[in-house]
Amino acid sequence: MTVSLNETHDPARRSFVATANAPDADFPIQNLPFGVFRPAAGLPPRVGVAIGDQILDIAAASSSFAGLAAAAGRACPLPHLNALMALGPPAWSALRLALSRALSAGHGEESLRRHLTPMAQAEIEMPVAVRNFTDFYASIFHATNAGRAFRPDNPLLPNYKYVPVAYHCRASSIRLSGTPVRRPRGQRKRADEAAPSYGPSRNLDFELELGFYVGVPSALGETVPIGKAAEHIFGFCLLNDWSARDVQGWEYQPLGPFLGKNFATTVSPWVVTAEALAPFRTAAFTRAASDPAPLPHLDDAEDRVRGGLDLTLEAYLVSAAMRRDGIAPRRLARTSSTSLYWTVAQMVAHHASNGCNLEIGDLIGSGTISGPERSSWGSLLELTARGREPISLPSGEQRGFIEDGDEIIFRGLAEKPGYPRVGFGECRAVILPAE
Amino acid sequence: MTVSLNETHDPARRSFVATANAPDADFPIQNLPFGVFRPAAGLPPRVGVAIGDQILDIAAASSSFAGLAAAAGRACPLPHLNALMALGPPAWSALRLALSRALSAGHGEESLRRHLTPMAQAEIEMPVAVRNFTDFYASIFHATNAGRAFRPDNPLLPNYKYVPVAYHCRASSIRLSGTPVRRPRGQRKRADEAAPSYGPSRNLDFELELGFYVGVPSALGETVPIGKAAEHIFGFCLLNDWSARDVQGWEYQPLGPFLGKNFATTVSPWVVTAEALAPFRTAAFTRAASDPAPLPHLDDAEDRVRGGLDLTLEAYLVSAAMRRDGIAPRRLARTSSTSLYWTVAQMVAHHASNGCNLEIGDLIGSGTISGPERSSWGSLLELTARGREPISLPSGEQRGFIEDGDEIIFRGLAEKPGYPRVGFGECRAVILPAE
Repeated sequence: MTVSLNETHDPARRSFVATANAPDADFPIQNLPFGVFRPAAGLPPRVGVAIGDQILDIAAASSSFAGLAAAAGRACPLPHLNALMALGPPAWSALRLALSRALSAGHGEESLRRHLTPMAQAEIEMPVAVRNFTDFYASIFHATNAGRAFRPDNPLLPNYKYVPVAYHCRASSIRLSGTPVRRPRGQRKRADEAAPSYGPSRNLDFELELGFYVGVPSALGETVPIGKAAEHIFGFCLLNDWSARDVQGWEYQPLGPFLGKNFATTVSPWVVTAEALAPFRTAAFTRAASDPAPLPHLDDAEDRVRGGLDLTLEAYLVSAAMRRDGIAPRRLARTSSTSLYWTVAQMVAHHASNGCNLEIGDLIGSGTISGPERSSWGSLLELTARGREPISLPSGEQRGFIEDGDEIIFRGLAEKPGYPRVGFGECRAVILPAE
Repeated sequence: MTVSLNETHDPARRSFVATANAPDADFPIQNLPFGVFRPAAGLPPRVGVAIGDQILDIAAASSSFAGLAAAAGRACPLPHLNALMALGPPAWSALRLALSRALSAGHGEESLRRHLTPMAQAEIEMPVAVRNFTDFYASIFHATNAGRAFRPDNPLLPNYKYVPVAYHCRASSIRLSGTPVRRPRGQRKRADEAAPSYGPSRNLDFELELGFYVGVPSALGETVPIGKAAEHIFGFCLLNDWSARDVQGWEYQPLGPFLGKNFATTVSPWVVTAEALAPFRTAAFTRAASDPAPLPHLDDAEDRVRGGLDLTLEAYLVSAAMRRDGIAPRRLARTSSTSLYWTVAQMVAHHASNGCNLEIGDLIGSGTISGPERSSWGSLLELTARGREPISLPSGEQRGFIEDGDEIIFRGLAEKPGYPRVGFGECRAVILPAE
């Protein structure tokens, strides 16, 4: 990304909201993620920014801002972030700067306190009206693990190191963290069965992903140069691409995943802006010496040096029994977005490389993020070798795949020495029995 | 479909719009397809109904209607059909009945003439704000032809006769008939090339499809019973799923088509309602005796008897040279929707069988419709055996795939003895050179 550091990234800045200054806070004043909330049930939704354990109503506070920031603030009584996105990167930055100053210690406390709602009391809503949803397959470790099940000697297909492989998913079934997910029914056929049958999925899985929202559109028939591609992204979230592996395995040839995936996708509520993540830019994935270079339209010197993102993502499971007995969630995986073979800019440039138009509110997923070690694999398909090597839970239960009543919880954060932690909050959902 | 015949299907009814009564008219009073138009440039778009060579402004005429029809008419100044769809099937039927009566000969001529615009003078717009776009693969002849290229001995995959195979496509790049399509660039690699390169597609193709729009939504987590599935469909259109075969071939494993398809999809302007097509319902495809029965959730006695649709679809090509020399379009294919292995109801029930929610304005494609004979194959991939057996044009040119300047034209119609022809009009687009 070409976003440069500015005073909003000053690690010494503190907020008058005391909880934002705790070392383990997800939402310090250096983060300022956007979301949509109702201050209380029955009130209309509006755009807010998370600060510590509070949410600031941006439109209500916007009279405190000047110029572009005030204009951006006025876009915020709408029930999703799309209108703010449509104002473009200078307005996003101006609003972020105004918020950073207004929420800093000893600054606007008197005038802003009345526009804060405790997160615990607010109703959080879907942040973005998602237009189109695309999911990539950008972790080479995940692609290798998933491919190994089918092709032990040659797990990676010949196109992988040239093409940031992706497919279209379903926008209608994207839901906010906290919304329960009903176990899907579907056609599935085990190897020992002569014919498929229709019934509840027996191999329900999660996929631990990073999501990003398009804020700057592109025109149909036009490409997006790799050097400009990252600028199209407004911000990031955690994304669970729920997968019914048995349904997917039976249906997916030759046109790819469909009902095995489109029954639900869960996203985290707070959109962490690209600007907030600027301090965590890092080098792109280091390709093996024997790997081909990306084709020129996917290759950029700046992107090679700063196109990667150093984020940590974690997946946890709590079973119904663990919840009942007060047992803490069992961590299943801890992975890093540095293991993505393709950068965000490469994914965006590839998406538009045929002239496909990007729209404001498009959601793009990274694909499951798995690292080289087993503890960093981002799905049960990988972690349990398709259920053959179940995971033990502290309750004494075992899991090959997800059972009814299980809750899957993702957490995400960015950390580096001398800088406040920038967190994503949680992306969670409990599984309900099939209809 | 469970729509029964009523007075709007009276084959003897004639319109006071004389051009609607011609035997070769696409839009007789038995059709009454909905669309969106501007009576003149600069005027706001509104919903209209095609009658002969005229378009009736429904909202303007709605004061002539009573009850539910008047209410439906009032939904029609909006710039797409989604609001009308949202009123539900009884309102669609009531409006159709009111329009049939009002436009019939000797009826409302004096009051309605002033709300007619000649089609030739109107600006036609996209009829529907498309929410999600799904494309099926429902012609067994197409699936066999396409599969044969890869697996000569076993062209159909084992899931085909159980699963109405489908994939998600891109909603953002759907455009109205008449909008030029830019040849996409993309990564492609010929068998004789050591590595892929990025450039204009060398194998641009069309796919001749029937599209249908969801008018009745379904809730997330709920299924749609096969016996109710057809009622979710508002109407039908012609659909060209443009395909860059070289890009598709290189990218599609393992997650299916992406950039090879999502650069453009073209739809015809007039949405022919399910009710208008009721006289053309026919038996579902006759499965071979050795084929498995559909699983129970995709099987319905009424759908077996009346779930098919007897529509004829044609594809034509005009090259730039032919256009210049006034040579008539060369017909490439003439096919029938009776060769679809899966009915519309089966496709809809399958789509919701995992709880995936359908939304008002969803567009669903049948997939390429090919019949058993070569003359009925719905893509150049099939017609020219991947370009190896080019088609001769009357200009002396040859085509393995589509060249710049070529225009592809689809026509669709329903015919049966003793009943006026119900047509779809045209779905056409010319190919522009790559950017």
